[in-house]
Amino acid sequence: MPKGKPEVIPDDGLTTRQRRNRPLLVVHTGVMKGKSTAAFGMALRAWNQGWKIGVFQFVKSAKWRVGEQSAFQALGEVHERTGQGGPVEWHKMGEGWSWARKPGSEEDHAEKGREGWAEIKRRLAEERHDFYVLDEFAYLLHWGWLDVDEVVETLTNRPGRQHVVITGRNAPRALIDAADLVVEMTKIKHPMDAGQKGQRGIEW
Amino acid sequence: MPKGKPEVIPDDGLTTRQRRNRPLLVVHTGVMKGKSTAAFGMALRAWNQGWKIGVFQFVKSAKWRVGEQSAFQALGEVHERTGQGGPVEWHKMGEGWSWARKPGSEEDHAEKGREGWAEIKRRLAEERHDFYVLDEFAYLLHWGWLDVDEVVETLTNRPGRQHVVITGRNAPRALIDAADLVVEMTKIKHPMDAGQKGQRGIEW
Repeated sequence: MPKGKPEVIPDDGLTTRQRRNRPLLVVHTGVMKGKSTAAFGMALRAWNQGWKIGVFQFVKSAKWRVGEQSAFQALGEVHERTGQGGPVEWHKMGEGWSWARKPGSEEDHAEKGREGWAEIKRRLAEERHDFYVLDEFAYLLHWGWLDVDEVVETLTNRPGRQHVVITGRNAPRALIDAADLVVEMTKIKHPMDAGQKGQRGIEW
Repeated sequence: MPKGKPEVIPDDGLTTRQRRNRPLLVVHTGVMKGKSTAAFGMALRAWNQGWKIGVFQFVKSAKWRVGEQSAFQALGEVHERTGQGGPVEWHKMGEGWSWARKPGSEEDHAEKGREGWAEIKRRLAEERHDFYVLDEFAYLLHWGWLDVDEVVETLTNRPGRQHVVITGRNAPRALIDAADLVVEMTKIKHPMDAGQKGQRGIEW
């Protein structure tokens, strides 16, 4: 946790409170695990504030269901039942395409990715959620499936008070420049180095 | 997510399944935010597996209550009510001592920290939880409040199938050497750089 005192007070005409409450554009990038995990951890805090959570996973497969999804669906039900926390929507975009590009199916994957982004754009315009997780979204930009400038412009000019967290390797420079908070997950050591494969409860 | 194929198959006499299911010692270190957040994200997956979760926060103040705590308590209640997921225990160790060392009160803080570790040791010996988060625990080692060798030995020789995730800056070398998975959170950009202070729902 950073200490509470910023080193620079910008000359932006905002009060400390106004500046403090600006919605954030956050990017988790780097080669190491923890990018999505940390984004879902952030979403826990957002849920606790009663914020409307929207998770959009650009995942390996629509059949792929991570533990976080079940947990957040349980939290969404807690909200419906008791009013505690906020409502949760969890969407898988681009059913069936892989974060590991597969030859032969690229055009389909790109098209699904563009449909997913179009949906997110509509929601941002309508201010549908308070806290968005665009999981593995950076790949779509890296692979050139989306126009980076258009995405950055849409995110930068999103209305209201909507926080957006984007994960994925190889986040492009323009996205990093536009973001308020960028964390790179760096590998120091991984069980795979010692020949240990991913396991239930840890990797999914 | 790393690909499923390890580059090295170690000559350790274990089958792939045995190796796969070895409990992990995980360290999240580095100067950047996301260390604890990612640990709680991992705990979501563990919860979903029905594992018994134990969170031990070596925090700023016992009054400090992060959003994750409320969310996990809600998930613990879901488990009690419906059987979904696993039970959750959330403990704050060393009430009132700070991660930022304060002059004058150091000995008290160190003592509380040692009591906290003694409790964790007992639980590890009893195999009380399946998934431990020792949040901000690395500071205690860095500050010399605990004997690093003794902690590492206890963790390395813990019985059964208990996963342990330790967070905090300046994790000592011996802990990193003993860990299976080490992630360093590296700062690329932080809102504080632009004079923006932490905000509700994001920082807590």
